[in-house]
Amino acid sequence: MWLTPGRIPTTAPPRVVKVGALWQPPLGCHALVFSGSWSRDDAETAIKGAKEAGFDMIEIPLLDPRKVDPTMTKHLLEEHHMRSSNSLGLSFNADINSEDSECVERGRRLLFEALSTAEAIGTRYLCGVLYSALGKYSGPSSPRARANAARVLRELADAASDKGITLALEYVNRYETNLLNTARDTRAFIAEDMGDPKNVFVHLDSYHAHIEENSMREAVLACGDRLGYVHIGECHRGYLGQGSCDLPGLFRALRDVDYNGPITFESFSSAVVSDDLSNTLAVWRNLWDDSDDLASHAHAYMQAQLILNSKH
Amino acid sequence: MWLTPGRIPTTAPPRVVKVGALWQPPLGCHALVFSGSWSRDDAETAIKGAKEAGFDMIEIPLLDPRKVDPTMTKHLLEEHHMRSSNSLGLSFNADINSEDSECVERGRRLLFEALSTAEAIGTRYLCGVLYSALGKYSGPSSPRARANAARVLRELADAASDKGITLALEYVNRYETNLLNTARDTRAFIAEDMGDPKNVFVHLDSYHAHIEENSMREAVLACGDRLGYVHIGECHRGYLGQGSCDLPGLFRALRDVDYNGPITFESFSSAVVSDDLSNTLAVWRNLWDDSDDLASHAHAYMQAQLILNSKH
Repeated sequence: MWLTPGRIPTTAPPRVVKVGALWQPPLGCHALVFSGSWSRDDAETAIKGAKEAGFDMIEIPLLDPRKVDPTMTKHLLEEHHMRSSNSLGLSFNADINSEDSECVERGRRLLFEALSTAEAIGTRYLCGVLYSALGKYSGPSSPRARANAARVLRELADAASDKGITLALEYVNRYETNLLNTARDTRAFIAEDMGDPKNVFVHLDSYHAHIEENSMREAVLACGDRLGYVHIGECHRGYLGQGSCDLPGLFRALRDVDYNGPITFESFSSAVVSDDLSNTLAVWRNLWDDSDDLASHAHAYMQAQLILNSKH
Repeated sequence: MWLTPGRIPTTAPPRVVKVGALWQPPLGCHALVFSGSWSRDDAETAIKGAKEAGFDMIEIPLLDPRKVDPTMTKHLLEEHHMRSSNSLGLSFNADINSEDSECVERGRRLLFEALSTAEAIGTRYLCGVLYSALGKYSGPSSPRARANAARVLRELADAASDKGITLALEYVNRYETNLLNTARDTRAFIAEDMGDPKNVFVHLDSYHAHIEENSMREAVLACGDRLGYVHIGECHRGYLGQGSCDLPGLFRALRDVDYNGPITFESFSSAVVSDDLSNTLAVWRNLWDDSDDLASHAHAYMQAQLILNSKH
């Protein structure tokens, strides 16, 4: 266990570093570290837990936007002085990366519902696998499916722009989409397929980059000026630093490009995540069962990386 | 391109290293680097290609054993002075990691057919995902499915033992099985579920270990004295050394435990692999299209790792 039983003050920068020289992008924690659903109690547990672990933000999944009460969520966030982001991945039944126009329409409706919920919560970032179902496709994408995804996302980006919301497209590994597996592909999709709307960015996740990219640095550089959201996850989705994911290399590269957007911790254990989502994400092993311990450790790890990469 | 147009002599050890001190486990190449099917012409292309790239062995897939003519294969191997291994993964329709006794029986029959083919070819290693379908399961395995897999494999191990054939169980990432994702799990499965037959080993694949393990060293050590077969693949399944997979760490660990079994290069590109298998393996990107170049580079890379880890 990382912490017993008192908490170390993970948020306080060490005195030797001048505060002005600190690299301080907002640090976030995925709600699924704490809670698999979003009743008022669960929401409070997650928001309080993330806050107490030292985080500035919480990423609230909107896989089913109707299950998230935006008013209640907004109040809890205000009460605990926390900011939020929202994320989702589509399902095969409501997928805009499809040739089936009804399926695309269901995906479109879900994305616009999620956008409305995000706006009502007061969220500034809508991220995740917005362009595709989250799962193993049985074949490659087609030009028509790709065009459908781009068309719907252009429309979503327009609507988001009016609300001051940034979209970030999370590329994921080959088993979780057939469309965008690398930073380079994602940047090209935004520029060429979507017509480069100003509020659409790449969402880089270390877990997926670890599988699909040559290196973290190459991935960061391939985003150009359109890296907008970062997920930090270990190779096996457990405690940070325990596995082989090149997190030090990622933080160094982020600092080198002066990245100052959200950096959010993500980890899944079937101890917390619902059976359905565990099965979608192929979480067959429990790598942890103490949410508070995991989150505090993650915050300390990320904060340490910020300090190591601060300028003197 | 790695080679233009003459071949570098990748097999010759440098003169400064005493031959007796060299670490020389047999190096193999997966047939799918060269050929997606196994007609006589395709088989010859693959066997000759692997030989010319410098390899000692070729790994011939037996996903459908009836599509491999063992007599023709044996003759070609003899003609080119090459050794072989055989590998397969089951399908969901013939899966011994299942509660459905008919499905288990179909899997059992396929495994015994593969064993017969391997024997007829003169192969000593039958490896791969012998215990499970190769693909994304919709839920975790069950004790009954696990017991079925263990029971069939005990039977297969008995039969293999009579033929002088070693079985090696390849643990793979969470998206390709729900049963064995780590070296520790696989070693435990062999010892506890299968009753520790002497001819059953762990098959470690760097591509999968990169995702699921804390480190290559921890993975190798978790096999104890039962590491029997190794796959070398890059994180994105392309050229070795280009990605972030800790191959240097893996070779160092293999040397430290005095591993002398086969080390086989594996890489998939939809340029060669059939559409069906590309879709099963989620190969959406072409990372190479020149088999000879890829294989020669891989052999040189692996040979260099053997030299770097040889004792002086």
